[in-house]
Amino acid sequence: MTGIFVGVDLGGTNVKIGCFDRELKLIAKTSVATKADMGPEAVVNRICETSEKLLAKNGLLADVIEAIGIGAPGPLKPSEGIVIASPNLPLFKNVPLRKMLSDRWGREVVLENDANAACWGEYVLGAGKDIEDMVFFTLGTGIGGGVVVNGELVKGCSGNAAELGHIIIYPNGRQCNCGQRGCVEAYASASSTAARAAEAVRAGERSSLKKVLEEKGQISCKDVYEHLAAGDKLAKKITDETAEALAIVCVNMLHVTEPKRIVFSGGMIAAGDLLLEGIRHFFKKHIWTLKAESPQICFATLGEDAGIIGAAALAKSSLKNR
Amino acid sequence: MTGIFVGVDLGGTNVKIGCFDRELKLIAKTSVATKADMGPEAVVNRICETSEKLLAKNGLLADVIEAIGIGAPGPLKPSEGIVIASPNLPLFKNVPLRKMLSDRWGREVVLENDANAACWGEYVLGAGKDIEDMVFFTLGTGIGGGVVVNGELVKGCSGNAAELGHIIIYPNGRQCNCGQRGCVEAYASASSTAARAAEAVRAGERSSLKKVLEEKGQISCKDVYEHLAAGDKLAKKITDETAEALAIVCVNMLHVTEPKRIVFSGGMIAAGDLLLEGIRHFFKKHIWTLKAESPQICFATLGEDAGIIGAAALAKSSLKNR
Repeated sequence: MTGIFVGVDLGGTNVKIGCFDRELKLIAKTSVATKADMGPEAVVNRICETSEKLLAKNGLLADVIEAIGIGAPGPLKPSEGIVIASPNLPLFKNVPLRKMLSDRWGREVVLENDANAACWGEYVLGAGKDIEDMVFFTLGTGIGGGVVVNGELVKGCSGNAAELGHIIIYPNGRQCNCGQRGCVEAYASASSTAARAAEAVRAGERSSLKKVLEEKGQISCKDVYEHLAAGDKLAKKITDETAEALAIVCVNMLHVTEPKRIVFSGGMIAAGDLLLEGIRHFFKKHIWTLKAESPQICFATLGEDAGIIGAAALAKSSLKNR
Repeated sequence: MTGIFVGVDLGGTNVKIGCFDRELKLIAKTSVATKADMGPEAVVNRICETSEKLLAKNGLLADVIEAIGIGAPGPLKPSEGIVIASPNLPLFKNVPLRKMLSDRWGREVVLENDANAACWGEYVLGAGKDIEDMVFFTLGTGIGGGVVVNGELVKGCSGNAAELGHIIIYPNGRQCNCGQRGCVEAYASASSTAARAAEAVRAGERSSLKKVLEEKGQISCKDVYEHLAAGDKLAKKITDETAEALAIVCVNMLHVTEPKRIVFSGGMIAAGDLLLEGIRHFFKKHIWTLKAESPQICFATLGEDAGIIGAAALAKSSLKNR
């Protein structure tokens, strides 16, 4: 067999690797610990060795690789293949990730922001496969994003577009890790949702979540949605604020790129309909009355594979575009 | 001479018409009252007759026209060439503007949102001519917008993208004409800036603008910036709020499409450096600390001609793309 595309999703904790054929059908995938504290060279070695083992298990040698795509947390210089810095990969400072990988295999390597790669995966094979204009959010520790316009990923003048978690929705509001105040990420990520719940309980608000905080020393986003399902009023207030923050960003994105569909992904969508119906409810509250049609607001369909699929798809297009 | 492109900028008060050669050099232009109250057919007749007179004055017949571009206030269905409705053209309801014009001349007609057309004009020949990614705002009675990504106008799934005036920056804030609350247009358009000043004076705030309101019965945006220049404190507060609202939208647009340049146009940029420096000041206040580079924030360079130039340029590209 020839013509393998490797898709890599480099996270702070785990690195996922997938091998795909020319039709982007998954042949095999794996996930290993990133061991980011061992530094960039060791991480690149792990990626290469793990990929080669994965191929070998399927009776393939590394020379069947046509191209490699890798999604990494930013900010990046994608056109130069460099990771500038990343809160989740603290030892990565101006790391020439693309060159390190292409030196190893002598193949074309594409570096893209991890959320953009996952967005592209959903666009090509998942929730966006039948449309031209899509907006994509990942809801996890932070909020990542991706934007597809006219069937193309929006990259921006230096490759750092679609940092949708840092859209300001409440000027001078909650402090965000990025240095801004009032970002949607500071309200509606899984961590921020959990943090707001814990703050409210500590401030004395009555809630069944108080017991969770006392017993576990912390509250998770999952806890908040579970107590919402069980009828807790504070959980309702906190998750309403999460849904409203996300809805406001949806309204704003409608007015910028007018997507056909807005797709939410990431660990937090495990909250299911409670989350989705909330976003749709507040979207209706905030949206204008000038035009009736609204974008579809839905969940991603590829789960954790979106990143490796998107990275492989970007690798494949890079060959076509040469 | 052959190969003329006609660019039309249809406004509620005036319609501007320009004739351009194949290099988009302006041959002649004119402006006449729209007389929107006479209805769509009469308006189309005026556009056609005025264009033909303009050509005749330059020794040309209508059959030299290769294609026509027209920018009109939305919402539109650009792909079908229809004006759905417009607050400034109250008799225009589902008007097939493209068909009406192409029936008259038997030539290709392109309909585009007026702000998008002006954005494209600035992109092709004005403030954006040397870049690939641009965001454009028109500051007038309302706030219009345009977005260029990878050298292409962002149109959206039904042709109504880039309604940047309706990005919500203060949820549940001031009522906007569009039905939403807290839109940037409700704070930072010329009308909203003037309205906030008048409200403050009526509410008893001390200001040299009080005399203006007493004498003229109203305050204009121009008045506010003139009193700012003369040192009035209320004018400073009001224009700071305008600049901060625009700066927040600039931050948000940076995080969506990462433009190289953000261009402001429209009557309100007559306020000059007082406006521009204000936006830049508040942009620095609100922008994140993760990445040093910021977009250039500047004024448009084509003045009132941007709309007709952009419309003609869109007409020209429509022939190329066939």
